[in-house]
Amino acid sequence: MTSDSGLWITLEGGDGSGKTTQSNLLADWLVETGRTVVRTREPGGSDVGQLIRDIVLHHRGDIAPRAEALLYAADRAHHVATVVRPALARGEVVLQDRYLDSSVAYQGAGRVLDGAEIRDLSLWAAEGALPDLTVLLDLDPEAARVRLDSADKPFDRLEAEKTEFHARVRDAYLGLAAAEPGRFLVLDAAGSPESIADRIRERVSALLD
Amino acid sequence: MTSDSGLWITLEGGDGSGKTTQSNLLADWLVETGRTVVRTREPGGSDVGQLIRDIVLHHRGDIAPRAEALLYAADRAHHVATVVRPALARGEVVLQDRYLDSSVAYQGAGRVLDGAEIRDLSLWAAEGALPDLTVLLDLDPEAARVRLDSADKPFDRLEAEKTEFHARVRDAYLGLAAAEPGRFLVLDAAGSPESIADRIRERVSALLD
Repeated sequence: MTSDSGLWITLEGGDGSGKTTQSNLLADWLVETGRTVVRTREPGGSDVGQLIRDIVLHHRGDIAPRAEALLYAADRAHHVATVVRPALARGEVVLQDRYLDSSVAYQGAGRVLDGAEIRDLSLWAAEGALPDLTVLLDLDPEAARVRLDSADKPFDRLEAEKTEFHARVRDAYLGLAAAEPGRFLVLDAAGSPESIADRIRERVSALLD
Repeated sequence: MTSDSGLWITLEGGDGSGKTTQSNLLADWLVETGRTVVRTREPGGSDVGQLIRDIVLHHRGDIAPRAEALLYAADRAHHVATVVRPALARGEVVLQDRYLDSSVAYQGAGRVLDGAEIRDLSLWAAEGALPDLTVLLDLDPEAARVRLDSADKPFDRLEAEKTEFHARVRDAYLGLAAAEPGRFLVLDAAGSPESIADRIRERVSALLD
């Protein structure tokens, strides 16, 4: 994003990849260096977004796939227009949990919708806004599964499908990172939290200078 | 829409143009001829749509223009997938108050968004579904204003702006009808309700044969 003075950082990766830990460590460090940090997320990072998030995550019964994609895009449009852009215009650092790469990776991996269409929809919603930096915490899906579920249970068909889905999400993420190496910082989420935080701070320092 | 056996009819026009009256008259006649009629509307013609309609119409505070357009499109996607297509597949007649032509005419007339983009968004939402017939009840905005507000009040700036806006909506509707003469039936809403109903029945009869 061609922000005048602010910095927009998004964190991406599967559940269990450590996004929250890294977001906390980075926010602490940024505040210590005297920066104003806006921590936010999608979906649900605005007032309207909270209402939309309620529909997407808590509606009983199926939501048509395109309706779901459009609800995520609506959340994005309002969030970028009313939260992200104003904060960047004030010169603040926006630290955001998930952005359009999540939509492309997850909705595309569901195989009902095309990832490129989802990306176009998101970019229309956000009037083309892209972060200065996207940190992808990359975790082998098998490792993620072990991390989230270390119980000694039999590995059923549903689990196998889940593992396959998360493998597709990971492939999609890595494909997006390869297509935009300047925007992405890909880190192995299996590393220690402090070593990962060091790498992120290093890149953010360079961007702030 | 290439429905196997059902018929999809949408009604368009400004407030005060008589859509509800005509919808009632047409539904009565269709039921008398032995047809099953599904009467529905956008926004809010489905369970998810009701939740979306609540956000769009009752949220306190502004909604970003693109977010609003995406919410209408999400409502449309879910409505077409879960209400319209199943009814048409059952061979029923779907009689719908407002569809994508409303979005193009109203959101385009607001001048923030481009009508062609709104149309593309709607068509993506609905997977290209278009009605067999769209009845446009065309009413001169000045006549509509007089009809809705016959009180003898001074005509202030806000009223003038409203009249100008409705003139743009009308122009957009007429442009859409001119571009798709096969789908549209344009009728002068200033005519008598019964004469208008006759013209609609005539066209619907031909489509049902």
